[in-house]
Amino acid sequence: MQALIDANHGHMPSYGNDTLTKEADDLIKPALGRDCEIFYVYNGTAANTLACKSVLRSIDSIICPDSAHIFTHEVGAPANATGSKIITLPATDGKITPEQIRIAHQKETYWGVHATRPKLVSITQSTEWGTVYTLDELKGIKEVCTELDMLLHVDGCRIYNAVVSLKCSLAEMCQHIDILSLGGTKNGLMFGEAVVFFNSEASDGFLHLRKQGLQLHSKMRFISAQMKALFTDQLWYHNAKQANLMASQLAEGLILHPEIELYCPVQTNQVFVTMPDKLAKQSMDKVGFFPNGPECYRLVTSFDTTEAEVSQFLFLINK
Amino acid sequence: MQALIDANHGHMPSYGNDTLTKEADDLIKPALGRDCEIFYVYNGTAANTLACKSVLRSIDSIICPDSAHIFTHEVGAPANATGSKIITLPATDGKITPEQIRIAHQKETYWGVHATRPKLVSITQSTEWGTVYTLDELKGIKEVCTELDMLLHVDGCRIYNAVVSLKCSLAEMCQHIDILSLGGTKNGLMFGEAVVFFNSEASDGFLHLRKQGLQLHSKMRFISAQMKALFTDQLWYHNAKQANLMASQLAEGLILHPEIELYCPVQTNQVFVTMPDKLAKQSMDKVGFFPNGPECYRLVTSFDTTEAEVSQFLFLINK
Amino acid sequence: MQALIDANHGHMPSYGNDTLTKEADDLIKPALGRDCEIFYVYNGTAANTLACKSVLRSIDSIICPDSAHIFTHEVGAPANATGSKIITLPATDGKITPEQIRIAHQKETYWGVHATRPKLVSITQSTEWGTVYTLDELKGIKEVCTELDMLLHVDGCRIYNAVVSLKCSLAEMCQHIDILSLGGTKNGLMFGEAVVFFNSEASDGFLHLRKQGLQLHSKMRFISAQMKALFTDQLWYHNAKQANLMASQLAEGLILHPEIELYCPVQTNQVFVTMPDKLAKQSMDKVGFFPNGPECYRLVTSFDTTEAEVSQFLFLINK
Amino acid sequence: MQALIDANHGHMPSYGNDTLTKEADDLIKPALGRDCEIFYVYNGTAANTLACKSVLRSIDSIICPDSAHIFTHEVGAPANATGSKIITLPATDGKITPEQIRIAHQKETYWGVHATRPKLVSITQSTEWGTVYTLDELKGIKEVCTELDMLLHVDGCRIYNAVVSLKCSLAEMCQHIDILSLGGTKNGLMFGEAVVFFNSEASDGFLHLRKQGLQLHSKMRFISAQMKALFTDQLWYHNAKQANLMASQLAEGLILHPEIELYCPVQTNQVFVTMPDKLAKQSMDKVGFFPNGPECYRLVTSFDTTEAEVSQFLFLINK
Repeated sequence: MQALIDANHGHMPSYGNDTLTKEADDLIKPALGRDCEIFYVYNGTAANTLACKSVLRSIDSIICPDSAHIFTHEVGAPANATGSKIITLPATDGKITPEQIRIAHQKETYWGVHATRPKLVSITQSTEWGTVYTLDELKGIKEVCTELDMLLHVDGCRIYNAVVSLKCSLAEMCQHIDILSLGGTKNGLMFGEAVVFFNSEASDGFLHLRKQGLQLHSKMRFISAQMKALFTDQLWYHNAKQANLMASQLAEGLILHPEIELYCPVQTNQVFVTMPDKLAKQSMDKVGFFPNGPECYRLVTSFDTTEAEVSQFLFLINK
Repeated sequence: MQALIDANHGHMPSYGNDTLTKEADDLIKPALGRDCEIFYVYNGTAANTLACKSVLRSIDSIICPDSAHIFTHEVGAPANATGSKIITLPATDGKITPEQIRIAHQKETYWGVHATRPKLVSITQSTEWGTVYTLDELKGIKEVCTELDMLLHVDGCRIYNAVVSLKCSLAEMCQHIDILSLGGTKNGLMFGEAVVFFNSEASDGFLHLRKQGLQLHSKMRFISAQMKALFTDQLWYHNAKQANLMASQLAEGLILHPEIELYCPVQTNQVFVTMPDKLAKQSMDKVGFFPNGPECYRLVTSFDTTEAEVSQFLFLINK
Repeated sequence: MQALIDANHGHMPSYGNDTLTKEADDLIKPALGRDCEIFYVYNGTAANTLACKSVLRSIDSIICPDSAHIFTHEVGAPANATGSKIITLPATDGKITPEQIRIAHQKETYWGVHATRPKLVSITQSTEWGTVYTLDELKGIKEVCTELDMLLHVDGCRIYNAVVSLKCSLAEMCQHIDILSLGGTKNGLMFGEAVVFFNSEASDGFLHLRKQGLQLHSKMRFISAQMKALFTDQLWYHNAKQANLMASQLAEGLILHPEIELYCPVQTNQVFVTMPDKLAKQSMDKVGFFPNGPECYRLVTSFDTTEAEVSQFLFLINK
Repeated sequence: MQALIDANHGHMPSYGNDTLTKEADDLIKPALGRDCEIFYVYNGTAANTLACKSVLRSIDSIICPDSAHIFTHEVGAPANATGSKIITLPATDGKITPEQIRIAHQKETYWGVHATRPKLVSITQSTEWGTVYTLDELKGIKEVCTELDMLLHVDGCRIYNAVVSLKCSLAEMCQHIDILSLGGTKNGLMFGEAVVFFNSEASDGFLHLRKQGLQLHSKMRFISAQMKALFTDQLWYHNAKQANLMASQLAEGLILHPEIELYCPVQTNQVFVTMPDKLAKQSMDKVGFFPNGPECYRLVTSFDTTEAEVSQFLFLINK
């Protein structure tokens, strides 16, 4: 917020040719540890959609987990924008394996011109189920992509939580990625995400694509100012660390309840539990946690979740 | 072929305003037994794709079996043309149930504006695995569509074989269908299929859509002449009957071989068997049957398959 | 800005189900004077593109001036998103007439199924050349739309300046509009515009469309808070009035220079002049006004342009 | 027709892997005089649309005459399929100049990321007005394309008539072309056209694109058989020569009438004249010529137009 107030003074060139955007770039690139190009957009769906559109033709296809946000929660935006087919794989706790990718590739290309050309693997890190690919798992997926002449896109709207969870650096994570949707909103920004290309060919025409994709903010400095703030003094790290810690405390408290069970491992800031609806109702409405899905509940902690809030929630549940 | 030779004489109005097209319509409509509109196109992928495009917006979705030709074998054309999401259901022998459709609808709409609006169910009759929905099964699917405010599209590139198999009439089959891709090429035509709308709202703008969809044949009489021939003296029936009969004889012969097993029931003109590659090789190359898929073999009989050909094939297999 | 700071406190429901969004709606609707639905999006290109997409099929077309932003400056986004054809008419000072629309409609529909169905007229108010359609002119265009079964979309990113110029009310202006892109960014907002549907059928599915169109802001309150501020105490009016006044003073000063001529009438906050490049250079770089186009210069005043800035600019020009 | 009857015997591999398709290729390639790839499709709109789609992204644009069939008569199919913008230039007798292309390119690219990247010039030879680009004019257009990093597409549905008119060879014509829509239907085929790529990069993925574009004929031999016939003993040349000759005789006769004037030069098989509606009516209905457009009449001769038909037409006009 303070970053926005500062950005609000004086006149500046429009459409990203401003000092703040350059400063944000200069701060983020070293953190990612590799030569890359960064493009700011409004939200995560846009980052994912335009990342896909930048490298796919309508005859190509995307291989992703069946839990992928790009398939389940974006009203089909990525497929709609690219015209490409999405091939979903059954995910275990939100994750897929190199072997699954290889088989899916074989099955699709078996049909030659009657089927599509798989060109992009898209995974989410941390996943929609709050789990995390290890660095070795990421490397394995990247290797099968290279082998099959595919690119690897990572939906990183919660990548910071994965980095904290793995106790690695953002740079180590990015080693295995071709195109990254770099999160912002879910880490405290008012709005703003970024598409990062580590593969320079992939970004051809992206400036045009961003404008056509309804994502060119005339007052771009208001996005970059926030992203800059997020990367100043590793704010992203502290935000993610706090969120992960609170989720861990929350999970520890929840499993003590006899009627509550963890749905999948808690590795970041999302806790999935099964519990009776009645139990959920007496707590959800009163605290800043949200129900999710028809079968289980999803509790998301954020950078500003406090221990007191967690305690209050656990108190209400156990009442 | 004779129909084409006849159609080749004299000058006629272009783009479907000709006598032959009217005559074909007048012959086909009574056979389908309901008020409808018929539009001729070049091939089956086009019929399916434009049928979908005529009723879907990009925010809508299609529910279909995971074996559906529109999903697996058309390079994503229907999704590409409509911008709509395709929701696939695990099919049993190529078929899906009303209950599967209801659950898929619930799951998708649970997410509100983050997901799509399921608007079309698309099934294939006879299916990609040669099986057939009974009239009751069709009725059940149509009922769940009505309940959920969806339309029912049937990919009928092999609908004639299903009619023969069910010993019903085309009219009985069409009772439960909103939009039909009516086959031609797979029943002996040189080229040509039709999109049939039993729901008149669904066809709004289809003439424009056909032209934009690259399917307006300037010399339309060459398609309608063939469709007319197919419906003259129930030629389609005799063609389908012969194809089904030959498939049945083929299947009976094949199962006598100790190393061959039927993969799914033989109800129309497609026989799916598992057999050693070596066995397949000694017969396939020499006769007009085709291998299919990485795991099993698909043998398709047609209107001009003879008992002699079936016998020769069985002889080679058993050698 | 203050509105944003206020919106930044506490947790609120996401995706527009918040109090601020309701409050903004309650303030804007009376100002527009008609029953309507309002949807907030990030920017003007998005408002225009999704407005078009909400009512057009790929076989339809848009009629607009050849100077229209939707045609010239949005990398083809509206046509890309809709798949529809754009039919441009030669505009006089950015404006088109009912008669031009009628003729264009006739010419296109003459070709029947070989051409598109014109379904939407899109004009800009105030125009890209800073001029304004009178209320009578608007009414005339709306009448021809009704006659030809077309809808009227108005790109109103600068509609406030037109209202001030015409000395009418926003409500009077909206009487003749079916779908309005209601400006925000160009009137001082950090980001945010709205699509307003006066025709309720036109908005079917728009919530899905907004999400698919990459415009669903999870923290929607940050847009609505700004729009609410814009409509509190008629801030939009005061902003537009100041901008128009400064443009008028600027124009009066400029025409005194022997080498400068007005390119078109100055009716709002945009001044188009022809002048030698050399003259332009000695002033542009030093003050917050911008060159535009290869042949003429475009000077845009805004809500925070001061008399001192105008004087300084004129001083530099006349030096 | 005879070619089709011959093609109708025996079983053959589907989807273009047949002997006839290879034979057609072997006959056509030498005639075109350059290394190239040939893909058969159903009709001219498809050839044009897929030619564009093979080389354009949604952020690119096409520059073409405002009379281009791809803009006026294909329900926007090329723009719809590519998502690309079409920039039309005022054509003189259906033709545009290198200088017009250069200016249009400058104007569009002036706006940087707010506008599109012009990547393809598309012209028609012979044009929609029956006129012909000379070889020098073609060369000039190709040169400006090369200079501006654009490709040149030629809609050649009537290229044979242009070759006859210029008294050159097909090979000389093709020297200056990157992608050619090679006509069939308008030269006597029942159906079938071809897309020819002289630029091998441009054809990447075209086999998939053809299937997705609803143009993969399972019984491809029925198209290639006709194309082969067209190129056997230069049948195309004799067809086009006869058509051109008849048009020339027709034009000579028409201009003798005091109320008839040529609308543009007659260089191929299309004659455009202005004449009173009454005059038109007394002849059109009775002979195989067709009215066209709201302001003028278009008379098209074909390979099977006879001198007797021309005489009869002239007799009825002069009655």
